[in-house]
Amino acid sequence: MSSTYEDQLAAVLGSIEALERDAEDAAWERLDSLTKPARSLGRLEELAARVGAVQGTDHPSVERKAIVLAAGDHGVALRGVSPYPQEVTWQMVANFSAGGAAINQIAAAVDAELVLVDVGVARDLSALSDVRHEKVAWGTQDLSVGPAMSREECAQAVLVGVRLARELVERGITLVGTGEMGIGNSTSAAALTAAFTGARPEDVVGRGTGLDDAGVRRKAEIVRDALVVNHELLVDPLGTLAALGGFELACLTGVVLGCAEERTCVVADGYISGAAALAAVRLCPNASDTLFASHRSTEPGHTVVLDALGLKPVLELDMRLGEGTGAALSMGIMDAAARVISGMATFAEAGVDRSSAEEAAS
Amino acid sequence: MSSTYEDQLAAVLGSIEALERDAEDAAWERLDSLTKPARSLGRLEELAARVGAVQGTDHPSVERKAIVLAAGDHGVALRGVSPYPQEVTWQMVANFSAGGAAINQIAAAVDAELVLVDVGVARDLSALSDVRHEKVAWGTQDLSVGPAMSREECAQAVLVGVRLARELVERGITLVGTGEMGIGNSTSAAALTAAFTGARPEDVVGRGTGLDDAGVRRKAEIVRDALVVNHELLVDPLGTLAALGGFELACLTGVVLGCAEERTCVVADGYISGAAALAAVRLCPNASDTLFASHRSTEPGHTVVLDALGLKPVLELDMRLGEGTGAALSMGIMDAAARVISGMATFAEAGVDRSSAEEAAS
Repeated sequence: MSSTYEDQLAAVLGSIEALERDAEDAAWERLDSLTKPARSLGRLEELAARVGAVQGTDHPSVERKAIVLAAGDHGVALRGVSPYPQEVTWQMVANFSAGGAAINQIAAAVDAELVLVDVGVARDLSALSDVRHEKVAWGTQDLSVGPAMSREECAQAVLVGVRLARELVERGITLVGTGEMGIGNSTSAAALTAAFTGARPEDVVGRGTGLDDAGVRRKAEIVRDALVVNHELLVDPLGTLAALGGFELACLTGVVLGCAEERTCVVADGYISGAAALAAVRLCPNASDTLFASHRSTEPGHTVVLDALGLKPVLELDMRLGEGTGAALSMGIMDAAARVISGMATFAEAGVDRSSAEEAAS
Repeated sequence: MSSTYEDQLAAVLGSIEALERDAEDAAWERLDSLTKPARSLGRLEELAARVGAVQGTDHPSVERKAIVLAAGDHGVALRGVSPYPQEVTWQMVANFSAGGAAINQIAAAVDAELVLVDVGVARDLSALSDVRHEKVAWGTQDLSVGPAMSREECAQAVLVGVRLARELVERGITLVGTGEMGIGNSTSAAALTAAFTGARPEDVVGRGTGLDDAGVRRKAEIVRDALVVNHELLVDPLGTLAALGGFELACLTGVVLGCAEERTCVVADGYISGAAALAAVRLCPNASDTLFASHRSTEPGHTVVLDALGLKPVLELDMRLGEGTGAALSMGIMDAAARVISGMATFAEAGVDRSSAEEAAS
C-alpha cells in the first residue's frame, strides 16, 4: 500500500507518447498557403505550427482556456526567505476567490477560466466554495533541514494535477495555463533548478517578492543547505521534486503531465511554474512536446529553466509576479496564432496574386 | 482656397496640448497599493500608468478597441520594389472585407473592430460595402522621380485620419490601433524614416514582403533617388510626408493626431505605421503623449523609427506583415494592463499583509 501513489504516477508516465511530426509539417504547409508573405508572422506562425502538431490538425483551436492556480505553503518560509509572512499564501487565495488579484483581471482579459486549488496551504480553507480542496498536508517541511515532502506525498500532489488536467480536457478546455501561490516557493524553485540542471545556487536565486542583497545571499545559502542535506534523496526526478519542491509545484508538474497524456497544449507561467514543468520533463521527456513557455521572468533562475527546457518564451515584459499572470497573457497570443492558421484564406481561396518569389519556388 | 486642407490641419495641430503628469503619478500610487509585490508586473504596470495618464484617471479602461486599416497604392510599386504586383493592394482589401486575412483573425482574438479605409487604392472599390471610401487619388506618383503627393493631397489624407479618430472616440472606442496595406509602402516608410532621422537609406531598407539581396540594394538606391529629387520639398514635416509618403500613411498620421487631440490611446503597428506615427510626432511633438508602440518588426528601419519616437514596443515576435497585426496583439496586452490597475484590490481592501520591506518604506 505504501507505494500506491508512486505506482499510479508510474502508470501515467508510461502512457505518455511522443508526438508524430506529420501534423507539424501539414501545419507549415497550410501556413505557407495563406494570404500573407511566407513566414511574415514570425513566432506567431511557430506557435500555430506547434499547436497544430499537438492537436494533430492544421485547423487547431485554443479558444477555450483555463488556468490552474495551485497554492501551498513552505516550511522554509519561516526562515525569512520572503519579505512577506506565510499568512499571505492563504490571504491571497482568499483574494483570488474574491476576484481581487492580478490574475483575476488578466484571466478575464483573455477569457480564461481560473481553477483555484489548495494542495498544501497551512490553513483550513474549506469555507472558500470556489476553491478545489485537494490538500495533501498543511504545508511542506523546511527543505533546508530535510525533505520538503515524502515521495508518496509528492506523488499524491502530482496526481492531483494529472486528474485536474484530465477533467479540464474532458470539459472541452483546449489550452491550460499554470500558476502558483506559496510564500517561500521561489526558494523551492531555485533548489529544484540547481538540482535538475547543476547550476550553482547563487546563479538561480533572485529577489523573489522583494529581498534585499543580504536576503538574496541568505537564500542562496539555504538552497545550498537544502542540496547538501537532501543529497541522498536526489536519486531520481520524483525524489528530487519531493525533497526540494512543494505541494503546489508538484500539482503543476502533474498538470503538465496530464496535458501531455491528453495531447493538450499547456503553457507554464514564470520561474516557479517553469521549475514544476522542468520536473515534469525530467519525469517524462515526452512531456515537452505539449509544453509552451509564456514569458521570461526577471528572476535569473528562470532563464536557466527555459534553457534546460529548450523553450523560447512568447513574452518578455519584466514580470515576476507568478499566479499564472504571464501564462494568461501568452494564452491570448496563442489563441490568435491558432485563429490565424485555422481561419485565414489561402491565396487560391481569396483570389490574391502570389509573389513572384513564391511562384518561382512553387 | 488652395490652402484649405493645410489650414484645417494647422488648426488641428494647434489644438493638441501636452498631457499633465499628475494623472500618471496618481496611477503609480494606486499601482503600488494593489495586492502584488511593488512593480512585480514590470512593463504591464508601465502600460497601465501611461494609459491612466492619457485618460486622466487611475481607473482607466481600453476595453473598446478599433483598428484603422488604411489602404493606398504607390507609384513606386511599378519599379519592382516588391515581389508582389500592385493589384495585390486591392485584392487584399477585398480579402479584409471578406474576413480572410491575418488581421481579421487577430482582431477577432482581441475583440477589436476593424475599420477599413480606401484612401488611395488604384482601383474602384465602391462595390465593397464595409470599406470607408475616402479615396484622395488613385495611388501616389513615383516618389523616386518627384513628389508622391502634393501638400494639399497629403493634408487631405491626414484629415481623413483625424476625422476617423474623432468618430471612433465619439462612438466610445477607448483604444485605437493603426494598420496599413499598400504594395510598395515599405519603400515609402524607408524614405520617410531616412528624411526624418538622417539615417542612411541602406540602414532603413529591408526585405519588405520578400525581396532578395539585389532587390534590397535596388530599394536603397530608389530611396536615395527619392531623397535627392525631392530635396527642396523636404522643408517641413508636411512637405516631407507629401513628397515621400503615401495616402494610407498620411491617413494613419491623421489617426495618431486625432487620437492625440481626443486624449485617446493609439498604438502603432510596425514599420510603415511607425513611420506614419513619426510624421505625426514631427508635425506635433505633443502627439507622442498618447502614442504607444506595439511590436518590433524584423524590418531594420523599424528600430530606427522606434528609437526616434523614444518608444519601447510591447512585443518582439519577429513579425513583418503589417495590416495592424502587431497593433492588435499588443491591444490585448494593454487591455489586460488597464484591467489590472482598475480592477485589482488594494492590500487594505483584501486584508492581505504587506511585505516588511513595503511597511518599512511606507
